[in-house]
Amino acid sequence: MHSNKFDNLRESLGAYLDVQTTLSVLGWDQEVHMPPKGAARRGRQLATLSGIAHRMLTNPEVGKAIAELEDDDTLSHDARALLKEARYEYDRATKLPEAFVTKLAEEQSKAYEVWVQARRMNDFHLFQPNLETIVELLRQKADYYGYEDTPYDALLSDYERGMTTARLREIFSGLREKQSALVERIVASGNAPECAWMDQEWDETKLWEITMRALTEMGFDFDAGRQDKSVHPFTTNFGLKDVRVTTRFEPRDPFSALTGSLHEGGHALYEQGYLESDERTFLADAPSLGIHESQSRLWENLVGRSRPFWKRYGPVYREAFPEQLKGVSDDDLFRAINRVAPSLIRVEADECTYNLHVILRFEIEVAIIEGDLSVTEVPEAWNAKMKDLLGLEVPSDDKGCLQDIHWSHASMGYFPTYALGNLYAAHLGEKIREELTDLDAQIESGDFTPLLAWLREHIHHIGRRKLAQDIIEEATGPEATAEPFMRYLNSKYGEIYGL
Amino acid sequence: MHSNKFDNLRESLGAYLDVQTTLSVLGWDQEVHMPPKGAARRGRQLATLSGIAHRMLTNPEVGKAIAELEDDDTLSHDARALLKEARYEYDRATKLPEAFVTKLAEEQSKAYEVWVQARRMNDFHLFQPNLETIVELLRQKADYYGYEDTPYDALLSDYERGMTTARLREIFSGLREKQSALVERIVASGNAPECAWMDQEWDETKLWEITMRALTEMGFDFDAGRQDKSVHPFTTNFGLKDVRVTTRFEPRDPFSALTGSLHEGGHALYEQGYLESDERTFLADAPSLGIHESQSRLWENLVGRSRPFWKRYGPVYREAFPEQLKGVSDDDLFRAINRVAPSLIRVEADECTYNLHVILRFEIEVAIIEGDLSVTEVPEAWNAKMKDLLGLEVPSDDKGCLQDIHWSHASMGYFPTYALGNLYAAHLGEKIREELTDLDAQIESGDFTPLLAWLREHIHHIGRRKLAQDIIEEATGPEATAEPFMRYLNSKYGEIYGL
Repeated sequence: MHSNKFDNLRESLGAYLDVQTTLSVLGWDQEVHMPPKGAARRGRQLATLSGIAHRMLTNPEVGKAIAELEDDDTLSHDARALLKEARYEYDRATKLPEAFVTKLAEEQSKAYEVWVQARRMNDFHLFQPNLETIVELLRQKADYYGYEDTPYDALLSDYERGMTTARLREIFSGLREKQSALVERIVASGNAPECAWMDQEWDETKLWEITMRALTEMGFDFDAGRQDKSVHPFTTNFGLKDVRVTTRFEPRDPFSALTGSLHEGGHALYEQGYLESDERTFLADAPSLGIHESQSRLWENLVGRSRPFWKRYGPVYREAFPEQLKGVSDDDLFRAINRVAPSLIRVEADECTYNLHVILRFEIEVAIIEGDLSVTEVPEAWNAKMKDLLGLEVPSDDKGCLQDIHWSHASMGYFPTYALGNLYAAHLGEKIREELTDLDAQIESGDFTPLLAWLREHIHHIGRRKLAQDIIEEATGPEATAEPFMRYLNSKYGEIYGL
Repeated sequence: MHSNKFDNLRESLGAYLDVQTTLSVLGWDQEVHMPPKGAARRGRQLATLSGIAHRMLTNPEVGKAIAELEDDDTLSHDARALLKEARYEYDRATKLPEAFVTKLAEEQSKAYEVWVQARRMNDFHLFQPNLETIVELLRQKADYYGYEDTPYDALLSDYERGMTTARLREIFSGLREKQSALVERIVASGNAPECAWMDQEWDETKLWEITMRALTEMGFDFDAGRQDKSVHPFTTNFGLKDVRVTTRFEPRDPFSALTGSLHEGGHALYEQGYLESDERTFLADAPSLGIHESQSRLWENLVGRSRPFWKRYGPVYREAFPEQLKGVSDDDLFRAINRVAPSLIRVEADECTYNLHVILRFEIEVAIIEGDLSVTEVPEAWNAKMKDLLGLEVPSDDKGCLQDIHWSHASMGYFPTYALGNLYAAHLGEKIREELTDLDAQIESGDFTPLLAWLREHIHHIGRRKLAQDIIEEATGPEATAEPFMRYLNSKYGEIYGL
């Protein structure tokens, strides 16, 4: 039973989510279409709308309605679930003063524009003052939220509810050792795939068509979404029926557009897969970024970097690029897209080194936020860690600490969720292979319906009714650890590199 | 001197305009990019934001601040100008209850989606219930605004401040007679240009490049705007530095994309040309749609359909389409783009018949609003008037009463401004030719700087400081009438058709 009071609360929060999704439209447009001189005014629009959204959510009437409804025993199960999330959002939002939220949105918009320029001009010093402001604001944010152990815990909670810095240090120290050891064995094997043929021209129009084909086969609904190009691939939604992905083209790279689309497509299938009855509520959302990332990594890696996938897409690639791929087999393509080599750019990193990129950023972020590292020292620290973790010299900041969009979006505590995504995906992968025994044949024939149905049932439809860790545990059995991921890596790369 | 109170009011109204320009982003995206299933949620977003904007403007604090500042003698000239417009907007907005504004936005969004479908399926009955709702709401709106003579006066005032239905009837009856007489003489002359060559394939990519070249030469700043494609060309802005135009391609028509771009480009130059110091205020705006349309029609017709323009763009077209334009001269192109022939589609109508399309819609709208015509009777009335005014049979509603976007946007009283735009443009054209004696040579050499500078000074920079009629009168001398427009038509088409 829904009380009138509940319907009113639901409508108030729906209107709040209309403003939030409108902010997403402004953000999408900013990165995909906005002309450069439009940035200043866009910053004002984002700031104004953020302030409005904040006022709507923190309206004392909302708090009063939540408190009253919490005493109402007649509410349905779904209504209770929504009320719980309303409580969570309200409590978090009321901790941040409106002036602070407006200020953060303004500085974020400025920082983004400067970051784009700084990256283009390869000049960290251009971005440094903006990053300093962002860090200062993030420390304030942590103070407003409150924390027990470290301010980084508070920032983390924006992205991975229930996760702590201490737990991450634990998981990451284990991962670091095991992944490093595997990478060492791979490099020592001398069995690197032949990839010289990759260094050719790859027509963007043809690559684009392949990405559109892959998205369609995965089950992305183009009547409820679209794909565009942007500097950094991302997914956003303005509702369940308007989910937008972007991808990008890297020169002389036949794979980056496709892996970008598979990755963002994985996110998008999640967002197109929430329950329609949850539209315009907090429940049509993921409980954490880590579980969101499990969906993108599952499609990008467990599907898109699998041998059966390349039995299907090998012929597609050779038809699009007959000249460039003369004599390149499905297996050559499979091995090339799975080549392991320490590299500078996170989004292009292979599965074996990817988490090392995350660990690098995690350590820098914690040090900045805890005051052990100044923003001025970031490039130096970055470059030292890149040497330490991946054995690489960073030639310039655009390939180093300027490569990622996140800090310009005032996001710290976000990167660890990428590694958690890999771990969750590996958990899901083991269970899915148990239940869908024909998975390889399905992938090879382009029939992703059973896989998508499994994800819809066990992940997508749940929305925010449960925490990430609980969803993974209930879907797969054991508590999430690094073990399945290491089993996956060791098995796959042991075979490829003949270890 | 700006008082603190004035700065606060200015900021409140600036935030209101942030929401308004955000609504423009939502609207632009809806027509350019949104996937079809996104419509329902977009309707909610538009409704929520419209309601928020309405509440911001009608906040009693705003009214109080305006009233207090009206007694402040220390305000600068510009502050007074802004205050006057604030009073105008506040008074108008407070006449409309918030629930009404929200309802109108919702119905508008629904009607737009249905109109797109109805037009595609050529089925007026699909759109009829939506149009009935819109008409009912527009009558209510007129009642809220209040009027003396007819509710149509109230609707008109949204688009052409100071204009009346009676005055339009007067102007239009004169125009109708004179334009009909001219069209009769043209048809009777037997001197129709040879246009059979137009009926070929015209590559969209090449046409697109020509439109981009033309916009660039006109002075459109692509760092402060962009061009896209949409069903119906339009211009919108999210600030002075983010002005967006769209154009469209008609099959087997070499001109429609270019005339679309020149037309919308004329609007866009106006919007990029407001004073920077007026950004985020009511002053960075046109005082009426008629004067806005004078800018688009000036660029589309007085420039883009002139002989010197085709001395420049003839070679451009022949380079892009050497096969299709074998043996077609600059003069052939000039004559073809100025061919006069009664046709069904307003946006493709020639200069001699265009106003007749406007008069048709004006008469239907007045009859609907005044209750003399039911929505069910619209197709029949439309078709009868099309026969009467232009001598044409309407084969289907998509080429008849479903062709225009406006009613689906809940815009009635809008169409007359298209005709006023032609009249104002003719006034401006006569004055500009007096002052820029080298205009033809400038157009031929692609130097539009003097023309744009003239428009910036006499029209664009004024923003909303004066009413349309006053701007035209001060820029050109006489009060706006139909005389300069008829002189322009008679002279140009007398020459082309050897009358």
